[in-house]
Amino acid sequence: MNNKLLSILTFISIMAISFGCSQRDAKSVVEGDAAGQAYVPPGEYDEYYAFLSGGFSGQITAYGLPSGRLLREIPVFSMYPENGYGYSEESKAMFQTSYGEVPWDDTHHIELSQTNGEFDGRWLFVNGNNTPRIARVDLTTFETVEILEIPDVAGLHCAPFITENSEYLVSGTRFSVPIPQEDVPIDTYKENFKGLINYVSVDQESGEMDLKFQIEMPGYNYDLARNGKAKSHGWSFLTTYNSEGAHTLLEVNASQKDKDLLAIINWKKAEEYLAQGKGKERTTSYMHNLVDEGSGIASSEEMTSTTILNPKDCSGMVYFIPVPKSPHGCDISPDGEYIVGNGKLSADMSIYSFDKLMAAIEAENFDGEIEGIPVINYEAGLHGILQKPGLGPLHTEFDDKGNAYTTFFISSEVVKWDVESLEVLDRIDTYYSPGHLVIPGGETRKPSGKYLVAMNKITKDRYLPTGPELAHSAQLFDISGEKMKLILDFPTKGEPHYAQAIAADKVMPNSKKYYPIEENEHPYAAKGEGQAKVVRDGNEVHVYMTAIRSHLAPDNIEGIKMGDEVYFHVTNLEQDWDVPHGFAVQGANNAELLVMPGQTKTLKWEPFKPGVFAFYCTDFCSALHQEMSGYVRVSPEGSDTELMWDLNDEKKNEPSMRDMAEEEQASGD
Amino acid sequence: MNNKLLSILTFISIMAISFGCSQRDAKSVVEGDAAGQAYVPPGEYDEYYAFLSGGFSGQITAYGLPSGRLLREIPVFSMYPENGYGYSEESKAMFQTSYGEVPWDDTHHIELSQTNGEFDGRWLFVNGNNTPRIARVDLTTFETVEILEIPDVAGLHCAPFITENSEYLVSGTRFSVPIPQEDVPIDTYKENFKGLINYVSVDQESGEMDLKFQIEMPGYNYDLARNGKAKSHGWSFLTTYNSEGAHTLLEVNASQKDKDLLAIINWKKAEEYLAQGKGKERTTSYMHNLVDEGSGIASSEEMTSTTILNPKDCSGMVYFIPVPKSPHGCDISPDGEYIVGNGKLSADMSIYSFDKLMAAIEAENFDGEIEGIPVINYEAGLHGILQKPGLGPLHTEFDDKGNAYTTFFISSEVVKWDVESLEVLDRIDTYYSPGHLVIPGGETRKPSGKYLVAMNKITKDRYLPTGPELAHSAQLFDISGEKMKLILDFPTKGEPHYAQAIAADKVMPNSKKYYPIEENEHPYAAKGEGQAKVVRDGNEVHVYMTAIRSHLAPDNIEGIKMGDEVYFHVTNLEQDWDVPHGFAVQGANNAELLVMPGQTKTLKWEPFKPGVFAFYCTDFCSALHQEMSGYVRVSPEGSDTELMWDLNDEKKNEPSMRDMAEEEQASGD
Repeated sequence: MNNKLLSILTFISIMAISFGCSQRDAKSVVEGDAAGQAYVPPGEYDEYYAFLSGGFSGQITAYGLPSGRLLREIPVFSMYPENGYGYSEESKAMFQTSYGEVPWDDTHHIELSQTNGEFDGRWLFVNGNNTPRIARVDLTTFETVEILEIPDVAGLHCAPFITENSEYLVSGTRFSVPIPQEDVPIDTYKENFKGLINYVSVDQESGEMDLKFQIEMPGYNYDLARNGKAKSHGWSFLTTYNSEGAHTLLEVNASQKDKDLLAIINWKKAEEYLAQGKGKERTTSYMHNLVDEGSGIASSEEMTSTTILNPKDCSGMVYFIPVPKSPHGCDISPDGEYIVGNGKLSADMSIYSFDKLMAAIEAENFDGEIEGIPVINYEAGLHGILQKPGLGPLHTEFDDKGNAYTTFFISSEVVKWDVESLEVLDRIDTYYSPGHLVIPGGETRKPSGKYLVAMNKITKDRYLPTGPELAHSAQLFDISGEKMKLILDFPTKGEPHYAQAIAADKVMPNSKKYYPIEENEHPYAAKGEGQAKVVRDGNEVHVYMTAIRSHLAPDNIEGIKMGDEVYFHVTNLEQDWDVPHGFAVQGANNAELLVMPGQTKTLKWEPFKPGVFAFYCTDFCSALHQEMSGYVRVSPEGSDTELMWDLNDEKKNEPSMRDMAEEEQASGD
Repeated sequence: MNNKLLSILTFISIMAISFGCSQRDAKSVVEGDAAGQAYVPPGEYDEYYAFLSGGFSGQITAYGLPSGRLLREIPVFSMYPENGYGYSEESKAMFQTSYGEVPWDDTHHIELSQTNGEFDGRWLFVNGNNTPRIARVDLTTFETVEILEIPDVAGLHCAPFITENSEYLVSGTRFSVPIPQEDVPIDTYKENFKGLINYVSVDQESGEMDLKFQIEMPGYNYDLARNGKAKSHGWSFLTTYNSEGAHTLLEVNASQKDKDLLAIINWKKAEEYLAQGKGKERTTSYMHNLVDEGSGIASSEEMTSTTILNPKDCSGMVYFIPVPKSPHGCDISPDGEYIVGNGKLSADMSIYSFDKLMAAIEAENFDGEIEGIPVINYEAGLHGILQKPGLGPLHTEFDDKGNAYTTFFISSEVVKWDVESLEVLDRIDTYYSPGHLVIPGGETRKPSGKYLVAMNKITKDRYLPTGPELAHSAQLFDISGEKMKLILDFPTKGEPHYAQAIAADKVMPNSKKYYPIEENEHPYAAKGEGQAKVVRDGNEVHVYMTAIRSHLAPDNIEGIKMGDEVYFHVTNLEQDWDVPHGFAVQGANNAELLVMPGQTKTLKWEPFKPGVFAFYCTDFCSALHQEMSGYVRVSPEGSDTELMWDLNDEKKNEPSMRDMAEEEQASGD
């Protein structure tokens, strides 16, 4: 065993040395007015939004290009104390899964919605890798509005790749598991573990996701995918590793074969089989979490079945073709003709031709089959081989001039090559070990040819040190000329696993500035200070609170008792851009609320001890922000302190509906 | 009431109009090679670390200056799914308070440790505003290592201001509360509510904090403070607002008086009184949370008493002096002579002289007293008045040439003035509404004179829009010449409430690159793969797991049963910089672990359903990172699946100590 491991490590080491992985002098590689190219003068705008997945942060970050400035972190799968996402009553349901409440995930692949193979700036989708889910972010608000769990998969790495009219988000399981899940020995992997490729449809009006069908696949590890475009629209392409079917020490045991497989799926054919009733309904459990637009409240729905298609019953729906050793990225040229499916442990890159693949399928040029899936002859589908372009090829994007750009993890570089002629045109060092790269539109039918960002896995000495933990690093290159030029290094949040970048003018005009108060349908909204009040309902106390510069109403509350559950429903009455108010109360076993203009958000507070505690606005809003505060008095359980509050310096004590009903009942007794 | 409110708002509006608060053209204000000044070429380092508090994020961010790049977010008071802070077993105790577990707070003021009035680069302190606490970050690791709760205060805004040899961190309550806390009507504010000023000592070797004493003060709102330096070392200066003692609608009711008060404390005198036994022990409850250096495990200790000094019993310890209407910032010149205590609702700024204050005290030039505290005659302590420098003065920092720089919230500008002559020298627009500003060392005895960063409260149109929620914004100015020059706008994380900036060479040389494995004292560390194992202890299962490129050991675990509590103790065996490994397991109601080289961290996992689930390394570490994974099998409760695991492709099944003991016992029966 150690010998096998040794031979792989030796291979990597030798290649690393020959390609030169040591630290290099960066200054020598910055040419021309890089400072001027990266600089966006105060008050001017960046040209592009780059949406970077946060990897292990579970979030998404929006950066401006070319400045590399972090415009905003968008919370998606992980709880976010900074604005109360996952802590507010409105957002808690977003974290529901068939495993209960899951407060974290690992985002990998950003997919912007497309129309006719171009980004349309409407939504953004991203996967949760660990507890498999797909999320949708609304680009008018930059808020996560939907999360759909994907059942019976593990490690949803290979997701959520979009088709050219946002018909589907395609995803494959990274780790095969027993389907349905059951308690079986792990060493029965080859008998009991299966892969699933999932097709989630996207409603063209609302953006809502629906798990339309799943395809049962051999128990391999499905790693990355792209969907065909233009001529290849209707097809999906997915890399697999571990076609060895290993279940332990994958580092060695899943690196045995010289070739793994690329899965090729005709999803239009799948739709036909579905229509013919070839799908098998299967009982399972997964959650669908959706934010209601009017109230801003998320709710969860348990889904209880999926439809599975089996390639054995659906000929012509799925194919394999061999791909060099342990492939990772799978990328398709803008015209839909070329599929790059290189192996990260191979020195050569294999480029497939869609036309040749179709011809091979037509001619049934197969080398056997695997579990009912024909394996297309390798040479028959090949456009050609890019020989020894670098070491450890991972991902490829494209420009608008027929060029491809591939990252090489081990030799730490980006290599530019001609997609048609397979000629290497240029190479440039990265610092260090790039994973994904992104060119705005670089995976669509209309790439831009101006910038490229490499997302590097190793940072080491690139910035001032910050102890053992360092930010990951991105590098911006100018690719407008024949030679690539390094412009800027910028550190990133979390692991910037992958990114997509879009021209600012496709998003900016639709950006919402505030929530119109008249459209607020939150059941506990107070749409004016006249509606501010406190209502007791058993041990629940509902505070209908308003926030406007510079006071909270009510600002003093008495009559709360130990054992109560207090719900502060805070409505921000402002109707202007960038006037959020925050709300926090002392000793809350909870985060804060950040409430945008026109919104209502709710903080649950369970008092911990009797006394008088402070609450205040947490987002500096005005010259008298420090004065925007109040107190809540907590009395012992069973105390007779009356429910009352201060509203604009006046004591209020209105009996609630419930109280009145009780009084009536009491007097009736 | 409405009339009062109206008059304040009218004042603000008129002043705002006269100073011009409207949107301005930024381009015209960028002069010279601003791009070149802000640009740090790839591979080169920033000159300064700027540590910005995150405000409502509860964290700290480290930025590089002049580039404005976010080097790292340091989790402090808020749970941080990104690296498992607050989720790992090692870090949970950091969130303990006398209110139970509090997962969020609001950081406001960064204080770097000082020696002889200069930053020494050892530690960084920051306050938790909402549930009052002070945290310490170790600047060798950039990790939060200690959190001390401050009892019987509310809104610890006025904290944690440091003395010039880091003897003390001084803090005042922002909201007065009943002391001790009790269930009293809020409108008994004037009788029952008190303020406390707290002195937390810092151990000069370990940095450990201890609440040495508290001073009982009138029930005002203590807002900001600075400690004297050089000649004024031994004294603290704190602004108060709400000397009206209002408890509702503070916006109006705490803005009545023309002057509020500056509290002046002789803490060396306080130490004398303490030594004389004038302190009163008082029973209370607060938590002290500390990370053990060897194991990296935080533990909580409940503290049960504090010592209170009352000014009535301690003459010469506390004074007041009037300060213009609703003061906010309180800042002291590098020589310790001038104290800026301006009022945010005053058109003029009052500058006090330390020498004059001392002379007035000596001469007992007092205008009465408040609760036993002499009020120094306003004119007697005054150095002079800076007349109508701008509107809404908030904070002042100093350069190395005798100049002061003050932010004006309402007129949106920074004004430079001569500390001695009180002459306005320059003014520059900010975009928009600055709160704090920072000059590296600008509050110490040795300020730098190169850069100034304004932290703005309103962002609006400065960057590409991101929906209703926008990042806050900072602006970097060059202050090396006579006129200030705008260099760069950069968005920030959370609310960058205040910042301190320090020359890179004071921190960089001490930055730790990894944790030596031989110093790891974690009780569940596996310091080599030979120590990897799984041990059952009742329904607790402890997995001693190792991580090294590119496998986790063990990588398959069976014999886990429903109802078990599984503890994954992951030791990162790497001994090099920037080779973290991450760990996540499917369906965890928990975050991930990010484990630095040489560290052990623990994730608790309670299985939710039987089946086989995946775990994997979440931080892209190597070419075979995708292969760094494994499975855990969950059997139903009561199942007889044996505890076993795979270690380097070999099945292991070692009976644990407990099992062996049980076997012995069973055979003995």
